[in-house]
Amino acid sequence: MTPPLNFKVGILGGGQLASMLCESAIRLGLRPVVLAKGPLDPALRLSRDTMIGDYNDPQVLSRFLREVSLVAFENEFVPSELLSASKNRDVKFVPGLQTLAKLQDKTSQKRALIQAQIPTAPMLVHTGDVRAWLDEVNAKFPQGAVLKWARTGYDGKGVSLENDDRVAFCETALQRGSVVFAEPKVPFKRELAMVACRSTTGAFATYPLVIIEQPKGICRWVKGPATALGVDAALETKATEFARRIAETFELYGTFAIELFELQTGELWVNEISPRVHNSGHFTQDAAVTSQFENHWRALLGLPLGDVSTQAAFAMLNLLGPDETKKEWHLPPITARLHLHWYGKADLLPGRKLGHINGHVRDVAEFSALIAEIEACEKNWIQQ
Amino acid sequence: MTPPLNFKVGILGGGQLASMLCESAIRLGLRPVVLAKGPLDPALRLSRDTMIGDYNDPQVLSRFLREVSLVAFENEFVPSELLSASKNRDVKFVPGLQTLAKLQDKTSQKRALIQAQIPTAPMLVHTGDVRAWLDEVNAKFPQGAVLKWARTGYDGKGVSLENDDRVAFCETALQRGSVVFAEPKVPFKRELAMVACRSTTGAFATYPLVIIEQPKGICRWVKGPATALGVDAALETKATEFARRIAETFELYGTFAIELFELQTGELWVNEISPRVHNSGHFTQDAAVTSQFENHWRALLGLPLGDVSTQAAFAMLNLLGPDETKKEWHLPPITARLHLHWYGKADLLPGRKLGHINGHVRDVAEFSALIAEIEACEKNWIQQ
Repeated sequence: MTPPLNFKVGILGGGQLASMLCESAIRLGLRPVVLAKGPLDPALRLSRDTMIGDYNDPQVLSRFLREVSLVAFENEFVPSELLSASKNRDVKFVPGLQTLAKLQDKTSQKRALIQAQIPTAPMLVHTGDVRAWLDEVNAKFPQGAVLKWARTGYDGKGVSLENDDRVAFCETALQRGSVVFAEPKVPFKRELAMVACRSTTGAFATYPLVIIEQPKGICRWVKGPATALGVDAALETKATEFARRIAETFELYGTFAIELFELQTGELWVNEISPRVHNSGHFTQDAAVTSQFENHWRALLGLPLGDVSTQAAFAMLNLLGPDETKKEWHLPPITARLHLHWYGKADLLPGRKLGHINGHVRDVAEFSALIAEIEACEKNWIQQ
Repeated sequence: MTPPLNFKVGILGGGQLASMLCESAIRLGLRPVVLAKGPLDPALRLSRDTMIGDYNDPQVLSRFLREVSLVAFENEFVPSELLSASKNRDVKFVPGLQTLAKLQDKTSQKRALIQAQIPTAPMLVHTGDVRAWLDEVNAKFPQGAVLKWARTGYDGKGVSLENDDRVAFCETALQRGSVVFAEPKVPFKRELAMVACRSTTGAFATYPLVIIEQPKGICRWVKGPATALGVDAALETKATEFARRIAETFELYGTFAIELFELQTGELWVNEISPRVHNSGHFTQDAAVTSQFENHWRALLGLPLGDVSTQAAFAMLNLLGPDETKKEWHLPPITARLHLHWYGKADLLPGRKLGHINGHVRDVAEFSALIAEIEACEKNWIQQ
C-alpha cells in the first residue's frame, strides 16, 4: 500500500535542493516539513510546515524528529551521531545514518570504494607533522597532488590546488576537526557524472551519463547524454555498473550521484559519491520524464521509480552570483526553449549558486545552438 | 528588460489553479502573493506571502492590492467592479477587468462571439414570467434545450439538463442575481478544447487541440493531441483561428482556454471561453515543453512564450472525490510513466477535483495501454 496522503516527510536543510524536494513532495500529496537554518532559506518559499533552527542543536533536532515519519537529507554533512541519539521513536532516515557516516568522510568513502574494487584515485591520509607529511605527499605523487579535507568540503571548498599555502590549508582543516588527505593530480580528459535511484523495494534505475564542467570545483555546466556528445558508450555501461555496486556497498537508497573522471587512458575512476539529489541531475526537471527529485521520494517511499528516459540532448547551466554589483537584479531573460529555476536566495553573493537554466533539443544537431542560446541568456542577464 | 527578481505577483484565489500558478511563479524567481478564502486552501501549501479573506470584502481587497504590482486570476468570477474601485495605484490586472466582466457573463460572452462571427450555439435569454419563457424555449428549440446561469456556473453547476425541475432552476438563478438563458441541445460528436497563450507583447501560441470527456459537465479525461487520435486536422486549424480571433475580440492576455463542440455535421462551435489557466491544459505540465502555468506568467510579464510542443500522445485524468468513505486515504499508486498532481484539499468530498494524473507516450500505438494504466491506477487507489 502507498503511504497515506499528507504523510509528513522531513527534509533536513532549507537550501535549493530542499526547495526542489519540497516542490516534488507537495505534488505527490506528501507534506514536507523543512528544518531550515534561517527564515530566508529557499525551501521556505514553498513549505508551510517549517522549523527554523540549527540541526546541531539536540533540542531543535528532537522537536523536528517528533514531527515527521521519515527524514530525507539535503546534504550529507549532518550530525549522524546526534541524529541517531535524538531518534526517540520510529522515524526512518533514508539513506540510513551509517551510510551517511561512511560517505560524509571522504577517506572512509574512498576506503570502501577501494575495498569494493571500484577504481578511484589512490590517497595518502595525513598523520604526524604537517611539513614531513607534505614531503611524503610530494615523493609519493611526483606528478602533483591535490589536498582535500575529509569532511564538509563542497563546491571547491576544502580542496587545495598547487598554488595554495598547503601548510595553512592543512592546519585549518585540523582546527576544524577534519582529517586531510592527498590524491595524485588526476590527468583526466573529462569529468562525468551519473545520477541513479535505488528504491527501498530494491528497484534500481540510472539517468544517462553526463559531462560536467566545473572550473575551480564549482559545477558550471552539465551536458548530456554523454554518449550523444562523443563519450564512449562503454563508459556509460561501466558507470552504471559502478553505480549499482556503490548502491550495494554503501546501502544507498533514494537518488544519489557519482562523479567520475574519464582519464586520458580511457579508464574511468570514481571521484566522489553524493548520497542525495545532486546538481548534476537538475537537467532531469525538464529533460527527463521523471525528475531526480520526484524519483527521490518514489525511491524512499517504495513507489515504482519513474521513467528516467530523456530528450535527445540537454544542458544545464548554473547561474552563479556575478562579481558585478547592481542596484537591482532582474529575471534572467529566458527564451522559448529555456527553463529557469531560481532559488530565491536572500543575497546574490559572487560565486554562489543562485539558480539554473535548463534546455533540451529533440535533435542532437541543434545542441550547439542550444548552448549558445543559454550562454547568451546568462550574458544578457548580467548586462541588462 | 525583464521584471525585477522577487517581483510580487498577486493571485486572486487559493485553489488548485492558484497552487500550480504559485509553483511556476516561484521557479521563475517571482514572489506570488495569494489571496485565499481559508487557511487550508491548496495554494497555501506553497506560498509564504498569503492573505486569507473574502475578495468581495473591499478592505481585504485593498490590502491585497497594496501588496502587489500585477494580479492574475484563478477564476473569472471575481468582483470586477469592486476590483476596479479598489485599485488605488498602478496595479495591473491581466487580463483586464473589462475582459473579465464581458466573459464572466455567459450571455455577453456569447453575444460577442456571435458579433465576431465565431460559430456558437444560439441562445434565448430569459425575460418576464418563467413559465411563459420556458414555453418559448420549448417552441424555439424543439430538439431539446439546456438552461444555464449566465454567471458563476462551473463544473456542471449552473446547468440544467432535461430531467431537472426547470422552474426551480430558473428561480434559484434569479434569486442569486444571475440571468438565465437557454441553448439548444447541441448534437455534438465530441467535446474538444484548445489552450492558447497571448503575451502582452502580442506573441501568440496554441497548444494542440485536445479531446475532453466531461460526463455531467465535470471534466474527467483530456486526451491529445486530438489530431493524433482521429480528429480531423482541419478542426485544429479552425480552432487555432477561433482562439486567435477570440483573443483579439475579448482583449485576452495570458493563458486561456476555449471549449468546443465538434458537431455530427463536422462543424465546430465554441461552447465556452475561460480567461485563465484551465483543466484542459493540465497535460502541459508533463507532456509539453512549457506548462500552461509557466506560459501564463511569461505572457503576463512579456517574456517570450515557452515552447508549446508536446509528446506524441498524452492523457490527463481528474481524480474526483469518490462516493466511498474511508478512514484514511493513501496516495494514488502511480506507475513508472504516470505523474501525480495532488491538490491537498482539506476534505475529500465526493465529486470534488482532488488531483490529476498525467501520462504520455512517445508512440501513439501505446496510447490505449496508457489509458488502461491510468484507469487501473484510479481503480486501485479507490480500492486500496
